[in-house]
Amino acid sequence: MPDQPSLLPPAPPKPADPAASLFSIFTYDAEDVEERQSWDVDTCRTMHKAGRITWVNVDGLNPEEVERLCNYYKVHPLLLEDILTPNERPKVEESGGVIFCVLPMIFYNKSSNCIETEQVSLVLGKDFVLSFQEEPERDLFNPVRRNLRDAGSKVRERRADYLLYNLLDLIVDGYFVVMENLAERLESLEDTLLRIQTKRQLAQISSLRRDVSKMRRAIQPVRELVAHFVRSDSPLLDERTDKYFRDVLDHSIQAYDFVESQRDMLMNLQDLYMNQINLKMNEVMKMFTLLATLMAPATVIGGIFGMNFDVIPLAHQEAGFWFAVGGMLLIPLGMILWFRSRKWF
Amino acid sequence: MPDQPSLLPPAPPKPADPAASLFSIFTYDAEDVEERQSWDVDTCRTMHKAGRITWVNVDGLNPEEVERLCNYYKVHPLLLEDILTPNERPKVEESGGVIFCVLPMIFYNKSSNCIETEQVSLVLGKDFVLSFQEEPERDLFNPVRRNLRDAGSKVRERRADYLLYNLLDLIVDGYFVVMENLAERLESLEDTLLRIQTKRQLAQISSLRRDVSKMRRAIQPVRELVAHFVRSDSPLLDERTDKYFRDVLDHSIQAYDFVESQRDMLMNLQDLYMNQINLKMNEVMKMFTLLATLMAPATVIGGIFGMNFDVIPLAHQEAGFWFAVGGMLLIPLGMILWFRSRKWF
Amino acid sequence: MPDQPSLLPPAPPKPADPAASLFSIFTYDAEDVEERQSWDVDTCRTMHKAGRITWVNVDGLNPEEVERLCNYYKVHPLLLEDILTPNERPKVEESGGVIFCVLPMIFYNKSSNCIETEQVSLVLGKDFVLSFQEEPERDLFNPVRRNLRDAGSKVRERRADYLLYNLLDLIVDGYFVVMENLAERLESLEDTLLRIQTKRQLAQISSLRRDVSKMRRAIQPVRELVAHFVRSDSPLLDERTDKYFRDVLDHSIQAYDFVESQRDMLMNLQDLYMNQINLKMNEVMKMFTLLATLMAPATVIGGIFGMNFDVIPLAHQEAGFWFAVGGMLLIPLGMILWFRSRKWF
Amino acid sequence: MPDQPSLLPPAPPKPADPAASLFSIFTYDAEDVEERQSWDVDTCRTMHKAGRITWVNVDGLNPEEVERLCNYYKVHPLLLEDILTPNERPKVEESGGVIFCVLPMIFYNKSSNCIETEQVSLVLGKDFVLSFQEEPERDLFNPVRRNLRDAGSKVRERRADYLLYNLLDLIVDGYFVVMENLAERLESLEDTLLRIQTKRQLAQISSLRRDVSKMRRAIQPVRELVAHFVRSDSPLLDERTDKYFRDVLDHSIQAYDFVESQRDMLMNLQDLYMNQINLKMNEVMKMFTLLATLMAPATVIGGIFGMNFDVIPLAHQEAGFWFAVGGMLLIPLGMILWFRSRKWF
Amino acid sequence: MPDQPSLLPPAPPKPADPAASLFSIFTYDAEDVEERQSWDVDTCRTMHKAGRITWVNVDGLNPEEVERLCNYYKVHPLLLEDILTPNERPKVEESGGVIFCVLPMIFYNKSSNCIETEQVSLVLGKDFVLSFQEEPERDLFNPVRRNLRDAGSKVRERRADYLLYNLLDLIVDGYFVVMENLAERLESLEDTLLRIQTKRQLAQISSLRRDVSKMRRAIQPVRELVAHFVRSDSPLLDERTDKYFRDVLDHSIQAYDFVESQRDMLMNLQDLYMNQINLKMNEVMKMFTLLATLMAPATVIGGIFGMNFDVIPLAHQEAGFWFAVGGMLLIPLGMILWFRSRKWF
Repeated sequence: MPDQPSLLPPAPPKPADPAASLFSIFTYDAEDVEERQSWDVDTCRTMHKAGRITWVNVDGLNPEEVERLCNYYKVHPLLLEDILTPNERPKVEESGGVIFCVLPMIFYNKSSNCIETEQVSLVLGKDFVLSFQEEPERDLFNPVRRNLRDAGSKVRERRADYLLYNLLDLIVDGYFVVMENLAERLESLEDTLLRIQTKRQLAQISSLRRDVSKMRRAIQPVRELVAHFVRSDSPLLDERTDKYFRDVLDHSIQAYDFVESQRDMLMNLQDLYMNQINLKMNEVMKMFTLLATLMAPATVIGGIFGMNFDVIPLAHQEAGFWFAVGGMLLIPLGMILWFRSRKWF
Repeated sequence: MPDQPSLLPPAPPKPADPAASLFSIFTYDAEDVEERQSWDVDTCRTMHKAGRITWVNVDGLNPEEVERLCNYYKVHPLLLEDILTPNERPKVEESGGVIFCVLPMIFYNKSSNCIETEQVSLVLGKDFVLSFQEEPERDLFNPVRRNLRDAGSKVRERRADYLLYNLLDLIVDGYFVVMENLAERLESLEDTLLRIQTKRQLAQISSLRRDVSKMRRAIQPVRELVAHFVRSDSPLLDERTDKYFRDVLDHSIQAYDFVESQRDMLMNLQDLYMNQINLKMNEVMKMFTLLATLMAPATVIGGIFGMNFDVIPLAHQEAGFWFAVGGMLLIPLGMILWFRSRKWF
Repeated sequence: MPDQPSLLPPAPPKPADPAASLFSIFTYDAEDVEERQSWDVDTCRTMHKAGRITWVNVDGLNPEEVERLCNYYKVHPLLLEDILTPNERPKVEESGGVIFCVLPMIFYNKSSNCIETEQVSLVLGKDFVLSFQEEPERDLFNPVRRNLRDAGSKVRERRADYLLYNLLDLIVDGYFVVMENLAERLESLEDTLLRIQTKRQLAQISSLRRDVSKMRRAIQPVRELVAHFVRSDSPLLDERTDKYFRDVLDHSIQAYDFVESQRDMLMNLQDLYMNQINLKMNEVMKMFTLLATLMAPATVIGGIFGMNFDVIPLAHQEAGFWFAVGGMLLIPLGMILWFRSRKWF
Repeated sequence: MPDQPSLLPPAPPKPADPAASLFSIFTYDAEDVEERQSWDVDTCRTMHKAGRITWVNVDGLNPEEVERLCNYYKVHPLLLEDILTPNERPKVEESGGVIFCVLPMIFYNKSSNCIETEQVSLVLGKDFVLSFQEEPERDLFNPVRRNLRDAGSKVRERRADYLLYNLLDLIVDGYFVVMENLAERLESLEDTLLRIQTKRQLAQISSLRRDVSKMRRAIQPVRELVAHFVRSDSPLLDERTDKYFRDVLDHSIQAYDFVESQRDMLMNLQDLYMNQINLKMNEVMKMFTLLATLMAPATVIGGIFGMNFDVIPLAHQEAGFWFAVGGMLLIPLGMILWFRSRKWF
Repeated sequence: MPDQPSLLPPAPPKPADPAASLFSIFTYDAEDVEERQSWDVDTCRTMHKAGRITWVNVDGLNPEEVERLCNYYKVHPLLLEDILTPNERPKVEESGGVIFCVLPMIFYNKSSNCIETEQVSLVLGKDFVLSFQEEPERDLFNPVRRNLRDAGSKVRERRADYLLYNLLDLIVDGYFVVMENLAERLESLEDTLLRIQTKRQLAQISSLRRDVSKMRRAIQPVRELVAHFVRSDSPLLDERTDKYFRDVLDHSIQAYDFVESQRDMLMNLQDLYMNQINLKMNEVMKMFTLLATLMAPATVIGGIFGMNFDVIPLAHQEAGFWFAVGGMLLIPLGMILWFRSRKWF
């Protein structure tokens, strides 16, 4: 191999250029593997070897460089457009000798406490796989990289479709990581919610509802996408890889079921919250109103004996005052007993 | 070319006649393009050239002129009826050597702050495309016109079905423009709603709900319509155009998913609004009732010592008044502590 | 034509006999048309001419006469039963050389302000069409009658299936008339509802909900019924009539979509109503409670200085009374400012 | 016929034995019919005649006797198990030369005012029909029995499948009887509900909801069951009986639609009820609160002039008292006018 | 048989090792059966006899031992992974000469009062069945074990697929045991709920909702799983076993219908609960407010005659006091009559 580069990642051409694309290239067969990172799309050409499988992972979508890469691998301009457009619907297409698919990676952003999706596009050719990611900071593919560097690993012995399966598998597994996190937030919310209800929980429920709804929409079409790989009889897909794609399909169906069940639980939780709040509020209002009602007879009695009539019964008896105050205490007591007997509180 | 007209749009025959139809005619092949605008349907005949593709765009649906145009291009009377009837359901038909489809263009009317739909009918023949719009003021097709005037553009080299694809694509892209606007209104509403709740927001939610529901009904059948072009094996549709129609199909599915997700968010928002309003109202009512309840003991004490008995304890002691007022302050304080301990407010 | 009758409708046999059946018979071909109305089923036999198409419209379902008519045209007893049973589910059947369908006509009854359905049964044979209506007062078929009397009309030149298409088309168009009316009631309700809310509106919403639900159930199976005519390859159905049935199918799908969207709007309206009522009620209760709370301090102050202690501060000062009254005014003012600052009202 | 028995129903072997099975046997052909009731399963054997159709109706499921009967007619043990298990899901099976189906009969129990279901199993063989009912008190098959005794009836001339159709038809017709009853309860509830709302209505709505939900689950799989008879090409099913099964299918679809529409109405009713209750309660609370608020100024005025200051304005004027009382009346009047002007009540 | 072991279960290798696997092995044919329990996976090898069917039930999933067992029976590594991963989605796969399925067993945990699921994996080979359970404490398969020991039982005479049917049948029957329990909790809740409403019931409803939702998600995919066995034409499945799998399919559909109906009832119950609570709370608040309102006139009258005017009517009459007190009683009485007449309480 003539121009074998160092494995150190090269310095970016213009530091912090957001639109620059970093190309990470692997070429491998069962015996050998070569790996390089470069900011220059032409490296891909020089790395390409007949009889070997090439994987180019692109981080950051610089339109011109992506176009040059696609031209080199003869990817149709419409697919190029799909790669460069953010928020494409997950889909799979077989055309012009390649299988193309675009689907979301889902991450949980701890600082903003919400879910973020990033689009990844995959192109499978006879002896190459291209993968396009929007942001270089977040990456799910390291386990594949480790396997590729390991001479005895299965991915080194199989064809390019097995590499694609590995990438898909890691993306779908990433959904579960996010959902575990969602499930934890749900459960901790449920735990606190049975003890105490706060206004913040309402915002949390609303935010969880948005996240779950986002997950659901993102994952739903992925099932169909993966099912295509199971059903397809493209010559690019080895029959032996079938059962692996079926495995990914099972996982993506499971992911969707999981998110559906979380949605269910969330609705349950929201009902529980509003019902709890209502019950408690009702309870409090009832007690306040009860107290006011219990004090009303005392006010009436006070008013009766406060009237300026010449002749007021009991007024000149020594114990009169105590009779009145006694009434003020006894009448509410009677009311309490009456309310209790009718189970009003 | 004998009767090449000036490219200036002609003056309308009767100014401000709402029922007049303006015919914008393009005839083109890879080498040449001719363009004319006319209020006279017969111009379409004179412009027609064998071996060239003709596009007639009709703005304003004058029944007689549209009928004459349809007769010239041998469009079936039932299709003519569909073209002239407003609010037809989106549909596609292949019959009598043409493919006919009718679908809505969707616009956002800034002044009335609501969504408006306009019906557009498209007819694809062997070497012609007819497009019928209701109102000349609103138009989405200018990008195609620019491409047609450009000698090197793809649309000049392909057959009539590629022109139709371009028109469909622009119509479906128009949905996204409107939805972006909807999304903005939704988000700004959500932002304000978490801070403050007003009665106007309720009307806004209701109006957004109507708009989203309108969008949804309009876009839903468009997916099936576009899918027909992908599935159809009509000789009018070039196999090479297939992947372009599939692209439009992806977009129309995506548009429907988008509108579904907005509907979800809206329901979330409405629940959030009503819950927020309820919580706040409950809070306020609780405080008012609490205040009234706290003042009730003072009223009772005032009543007790206001009674006209000869013998009233403390009445003749100097500090009696202050004892009573002290009770008026201490009892509510005790109540506050008790309520707090039970987390009643 | 030997026994050409007068076109005057004959006098009913027994006046106001609700169970009598009025037979309106047309026999026609491209050249000629004969028309008669009779209370006697035997007239149908005498009118029947080989080579001509016969249309018998029956108003009022007298079981015996309908059975005799069905026997004459060899309609299977099970179909006869369907014709005579009210409230059959819309359906279509091909059996015994005829196509039979039963579907609802929908009318808006202005006096009772609600929707009424009437069942119509249609039988298509090789050279005849039978139509059965329950009540003679309501009829949708006059446009067809006018066309039949017009020598140049299409229906005169085509076979019996084209007549059937005309009848179906008029029935489905009748749905739109009723729905326009529903839409008007909905819109006028919506207009008033944003200004003022009354208890009567709740009953109106409930009644609209019942009407829309009735429409929906009535129209839903009609789509499938009409689709049968499009799909069927019965020799009774001319290929040229296909596109006309497809047109009716489009209309019936559109009708169903329309009624679905009205149902949506109605739910929106009901939510809006209940939310508006709740908001307004909350507002009013808040104001009443606020007023009571604002007056409570005055009551307390009155109570304080009404106590019969020997020593009451300010009691012997001239301005004492005004101090107290001033406090009665200032404290509520302070409360108002406090409440305002917390945005409690 | 040798051992022709008397037609009198035999005495039960052990009186009031709940587990005993009563066998009612018909054997018939076009010319002749034989009928017997017996508590002994062996009677079935002796009644069986080659060339004739036998119908054995079993009332009460004694496991042993049912097993012996099934063995005699070679019914598979798994089907036997289905016959003996209550609350099986409605289903149909063709196996071992018979068609087996199990479906619910639905009855309305007037005394308990709720819906009851009873399972009926039907087995159709080449020349026999077996029917198994759980309880002898409730029976729907008498019209068939009458027809069987009538020499000229259709059921006597046709094969066993026509008898099965008759039984199915009676079972499905039984659904409508129950639903008419449900509809009446619904309508009478709706009528009273618009005038007055009581707590009992809530229980009624809840019970109706349970009944409708029960009906819905019971009827739903029946449609599919009957559809099987229409689709099946079993040699046991005569082609001529097809249209009769289709008729039953129509009825079972109609029954399901009916129950669905009742469910809709019930939801409408429940919303109406809760909304009416809420509105009325709000109205009453508003009036109570209004009254309390209107009396508060009088309390304040009373408090003001009840204060023990030396100098109280008006106190020594003769009309002072009337000024105060006048204020007590005028201020609430003013409040009423103000509230009215703001449409607060 | 050389190494026939004792039938006593062996002592665990390391006591209370949670990760140890207990292997329960049956090898049988129509004539003979051998049974052993062992903590050592190699016992499975020694037990294996050509021409006999082997059933290995594994309790506790020690990854290494399970892997060794799977290797011995040539189970694909992907299936091995499914066996070892908890909470796999129910599914069935045919690959590599075996049929593999994984589904949940559902148990009701009395102590924690909630539903627990345990995953069971089944592998069907030509002459063996493997079953993997997570926990040894809970087991459903004893009835099969008894049948296997019984020389005359059907399972001894049939092939391995019949054994698998038996296991599936027991698992699905286990669902009904749990659902009966759910139904009991639902009914007892419903009974108490109509009499009295407590806060605990809300938590019960919420917990039942979670349980039913869990059941529903667990059972839903089982129907499809069992349907696969009915549809499959694998040589591993004897045609005669078909009707048995269809029986299990019926039961699993029935289980799903049951759980759906419980979900319906639960929603009904929750609505009933909240409505009951609301009605009762409204009733109580109305009574409290009514009492307060009824005492307000007495306060006003007391205030009127407590004013310190020189001239107060009635003040110097002997019966004045009684007039005032009489008014205090009569006015509320009048109010009560008025409220009653307007049906306000």
